[in-house]
Amino acid sequence: MSQTRVHNFALSLDGFATGEPQSLEAPFGHAGHRLHEWFFATRQFSADGAHGIDDAFAQRWAPGIGAEIMGANKFGPPGWQDDLGWRGWWGERPPFGTPVFVLTHRPRPPLELDGTTFHFLSASPDEVLAAARDAGGGLDVRIGGGPSVVRDFLLADLIDHLHVVQVPILLGRGVRLWDGLEGLEERFAVEATTSPSGVTHLVFNRKVHGG
Amino acid sequence: MSQTRVHNFALSLDGFATGEPQSLEAPFGHAGHRLHEWFFATRQFSADGAHGIDDAFAQRWAPGIGAEIMGANKFGPPGWQDDLGWRGWWGERPPFGTPVFVLTHRPRPPLELDGTTFHFLSASPDEVLAAARDAGGGLDVRIGGGPSVVRDFLLADLIDHLHVVQVPILLGRGVRLWDGLEGLEERFAVEATTSPSGVTHLVFNRKVHGG
Repeated sequence: MSQTRVHNFALSLDGFATGEPQSLEAPFGHAGHRLHEWFFATRQFSADGAHGIDDAFAQRWAPGIGAEIMGANKFGPPGWQDDLGWRGWWGERPPFGTPVFVLTHRPRPPLELDGTTFHFLSASPDEVLAAARDAGGGLDVRIGGGPSVVRDFLLADLIDHLHVVQVPILLGRGVRLWDGLEGLEERFAVEATTSPSGVTHLVFNRKVHGG
Repeated sequence: MSQTRVHNFALSLDGFATGEPQSLEAPFGHAGHRLHEWFFATRQFSADGAHGIDDAFAQRWAPGIGAEIMGANKFGPPGWQDDLGWRGWWGERPPFGTPVFVLTHRPRPPLELDGTTFHFLSASPDEVLAAARDAGGGLDVRIGGGPSVVRDFLLADLIDHLHVVQVPILLGRGVRLWDGLEGLEERFAVEATTSPSGVTHLVFNRKVHGG
């Protein structure tokens, strides 16, 4: 059974998944790299990174995934839709290796880059999930962010597994993940694990129906 | 050297220290008891409670404390100032056993109850802290909450030790602790510890000056 999964989704202690303002030079605004330093230190990110609890979680990003869904803000800086030459943040070798569905109100033709095909569409969570499942051959679908896309899928009760990484910093401003999700924990089993790096891994596993 | 400490301060994952609305029947609003179930299960709270990581943290509430400072909302439900007979939530045997300074814009004469003396005053964080240190004989001062009082003391950089307990629930609404505290972590060493009960203990220890 194909699951919908979120991995390595970093939040500040005050709940922000990105700082502000987002731009070409600062994709996470004033947060800079601070939400992702734990990830840069893993073997998943770099050959001289460390094995350990952070890496164990980070490695789960790819296996079993047949497609990713992402929001427009993850594909490019504000206004990328005006630049027909924009090919994503990742250069000519994006790390996905699967179909990627980019939610945008200004669709454009698909873009193929080294085994990753980006599809651009305007659709509801239900609709894009159906398209991603189909394109992914029935494997799991990863919701890649940003925060408003993850939130939309949580609100629609379409997430089976959510891995959040709480980083002990206070950003004070930016885009929050948790807004409007009162009572979310009732639908999930929640487990917390701290790491020597200082972050806390939180996993939300959806309870089997009625649970 | 007298320190200023916060203990056992529970927060939901989305950062709320209390739900809403607060009333005589529901001191934490729609949060009910959910933020404090971890505490009710400790030996610190009850003779048939458990020893363990939650209890180890909870026990640190009293030793070395000479006085407490609390906000008006911790002393009583909204409007308690209109009731001259209101003697706090705790009945005739409050658990403090030290002077307690209650911040309120409507001071009243001190109230003595079984070894606890409540003082009622309108004062800045600096002023009330000086009064509490003096009354506590130079021992440590506990900031007892609620969230807006703890936040005021953090903003004034008057907290040496902050123990926050993150409970894996999403309240969605209420009073947040972290608002306006961008960059707080720069002044503190932060440590996170998870518990089998599901909560995560976060301790913020103020760095020695210049750190």
